[in-house]
Amino acid sequence: MTSRAEHRAWLAAQAILPAGFRVGTTSFEFTPVERGDAAAKPAHMTITLIALDRPTPDFAALFTRNALPGAPVLIGRRRLDQPTLGAIIVNNKVSNVCAPQGVATAERVCAAAATALGLLPGQVLPSSTGVIGWRLPEDAMVAAAPAAVAALQAGSALPAAEGIMTTDLYPKIRRATVGAGSIVGIAKGAGMVEPHLATMLVFVMTDVAVAREPLRAALRRAADASFNLISIDSDTSTSDTVVALASGARPCPDLGAFEAALIGVCQELAGDIVRNGEGIHHVIRVAVRGCPDQGIARSLGKAIVSSPLVKTAVCGNDPNVGRIVAAVGKHLGAHHPTLDPGHLRLTMGGRLIFEAGTFCLDPTTERALVAHLQGAELYATAPVPDYPRHERSVELVVDLGLGDAAATTLGGDLTHEYITENADYRS
Amino acid sequence: MTSRAEHRAWLAAQAILPAGFRVGTTSFEFTPVERGDAAAKPAHMTITLIALDRPTPDFAALFTRNALPGAPVLIGRRRLDQPTLGAIIVNNKVSNVCAPQGVATAERVCAAAATALGLLPGQVLPSSTGVIGWRLPEDAMVAAAPAAVAALQAGSALPAAEGIMTTDLYPKIRRATVGAGSIVGIAKGAGMVEPHLATMLVFVMTDVAVAREPLRAALRRAADASFNLISIDSDTSTSDTVVALASGARPCPDLGAFEAALIGVCQELAGDIVRNGEGIHHVIRVAVRGCPDQGIARSLGKAIVSSPLVKTAVCGNDPNVGRIVAAVGKHLGAHHPTLDPGHLRLTMGGRLIFEAGTFCLDPTTERALVAHLQGAELYATAPVPDYPRHERSVELVVDLGLGDAAATTLGGDLTHEYITENADYRS
Repeated sequence: MTSRAEHRAWLAAQAILPAGFRVGTTSFEFTPVERGDAAAKPAHMTITLIALDRPTPDFAALFTRNALPGAPVLIGRRRLDQPTLGAIIVNNKVSNVCAPQGVATAERVCAAAATALGLLPGQVLPSSTGVIGWRLPEDAMVAAAPAAVAALQAGSALPAAEGIMTTDLYPKIRRATVGAGSIVGIAKGAGMVEPHLATMLVFVMTDVAVAREPLRAALRRAADASFNLISIDSDTSTSDTVVALASGARPCPDLGAFEAALIGVCQELAGDIVRNGEGIHHVIRVAVRGCPDQGIARSLGKAIVSSPLVKTAVCGNDPNVGRIVAAVGKHLGAHHPTLDPGHLRLTMGGRLIFEAGTFCLDPTTERALVAHLQGAELYATAPVPDYPRHERSVELVVDLGLGDAAATTLGGDLTHEYITENADYRS
Repeated sequence: MTSRAEHRAWLAAQAILPAGFRVGTTSFEFTPVERGDAAAKPAHMTITLIALDRPTPDFAALFTRNALPGAPVLIGRRRLDQPTLGAIIVNNKVSNVCAPQGVATAERVCAAAATALGLLPGQVLPSSTGVIGWRLPEDAMVAAAPAAVAALQAGSALPAAEGIMTTDLYPKIRRATVGAGSIVGIAKGAGMVEPHLATMLVFVMTDVAVAREPLRAALRRAADASFNLISIDSDTSTSDTVVALASGARPCPDLGAFEAALIGVCQELAGDIVRNGEGIHHVIRVAVRGCPDQGIARSLGKAIVSSPLVKTAVCGNDPNVGRIVAAVGKHLGAHHPTLDPGHLRLTMGGRLIFEAGTFCLDPTTERALVAHLQGAELYATAPVPDYPRHERSVELVVDLGLGDAAATTLGGDLTHEYITENADYRS
């Protein structure tokens, strides 16, 4: 178990910025024009700047596959063709998705940041998260840009990791060293999380010199091994974005070592995102094995962690393992009706619960499963802690016995806090 | 608005049994061997018999596409080849899925009912709903069979509609007349409901003379137009079963009229199932239009009513319409990435909210949408009523503008009551 103080000290150590980066934030209040309710409390927006000391040609970005993406995603895809990138400007509260003149508004915000930073507008990447459909408070954001630039500092990524939070309970930062350099990633994401080849908002900063093309290839593989294997609520965001920036201030000892470290940072951030998912009391880790191909292993794991009935049973520390078998059967029946489920073997917390078409349940197993669920619980009752007390998960192994392909998916339970958070998110 | 007394009177009128049918129930308590906890409260099981005065060759049944179905489904598929069927025996509380010797146990229960009814075991169809993984209390069920036979009566389907309930709040019965005959359907299903070519437990009784093959064809089309267009929680049950029995006591005036009436009964029962879904405060009806084919219309509707974020927003009477667009975009991006979403047009409660790639939101629209959501609310606070107060829905129209295919899907919101119901369903 971790205490809050231990978590803060650990975060500070993770947050040491790689050479060549500065981050800064500023905040203000505004009233969304779509609500127009004088009685409504004003919304609070934080602007976060991630700036390079010198614009870099070596940057990579992945964006949501949602067919109706936000304006920052549309702009971000174009920025991939720019010769260099110098800064990222991020706002929370309003995601700028399909809002009237959303692209023009985002470009004007970029231009304001660029002016304050001495950059060209095309060197600034916009990124937004929050309510879908609302317009950005453009004038307030343009006016706030110089304050965010004035707040830039080179010591810690923590202000940025806090600045991009929405319903997140705590900032998410992970760090790895590579030779004399380092990789530091920050993430936000607690709801509307089922990345589809990209994800949430994740910003990875490194001073390790890795050129554009290998950086882009490494980021694709890292996202595939991390963010694309998680689901909090099966809803794929319109704003999912992962960006990696390499300042080049330190030499790269070995591209393989860099990619391994990048995958590690992304996997740890993916775990953090799930652990901090809206209302989550338990992380569920499903290792699917014995599949004819990796696609089946990945989609079957997602199907299990997305089943509301599996999720609510875990919430209640109730080893209602029949629902896991129902979820496996639903997925195979709907998508792979010709696969033989007769070799299915399931364990939970290392204990065999299903084999040869039959459950293996008795009172001793029941008690062991309850103990495993209770041991993985992050918290049982309010108040909700604003730090992760431990990193244990509910451990499921699903072996189809039909091949060598495997994948490990992360998800969480479904709780009263998720309903409370989302039944009136905008108010 | 309906009162409880009005609902009971309406149910009694719906429940008049077609000629040639009798139903009866009996109940008892037992302790599941898998729990073995002396402190646990015993479980309560009801056995429901649906019996024909004379076995009929004219019966039809559809079963779940879940790849790990229950023993009654395995047996039921075999019964389709039997020359005649004389009765259905249904139990709640334990679904007999992948339990040790589950098929043999279900056959022994059928044999006990057959002996008491003067039938052959192969003339009795078993059907079970409840906890997955537990064993049926075989001895208690065999002992109870004569009491269920003794309780048979020909007046009302209500005891059967009540006997098959699990977490249902009220019985579900719908009736239509065809010439001198009638069709009466009863249904149970409140959770683990996303039928895949079959569904939940639904038993349709008719005295209209329709032969086996046209009855089976009509039932397939009726399920496709009703149960296969609903989702409560996206979990496809291992036990979904729809059975239709025709006693043949009345002539069939016209096969088309019969099928239209059957479709009507099934659509009304499907609506009842959603309206009574676990924890549901609002029914959500999504009419998807303008699709290149019906498959897209059906799957897009399912995707919208299965989005946890759409569902929780509706729960809170919060017109967070951005989440609807996110759900549309997730589905199209993942499954139809080449379709152009640029013609998308959305209305809610008849009010335009999205067109030409842009939201149309302002304070007047916001207030109208809140009023529409509030008007469709079945209940806002405890106590939960055990009857449906009205049949209004949250009305969404999603027009892709890309063709003529359409489908209307029903789902519900996601509420605290769903979590409470399912976080410790078995206790």
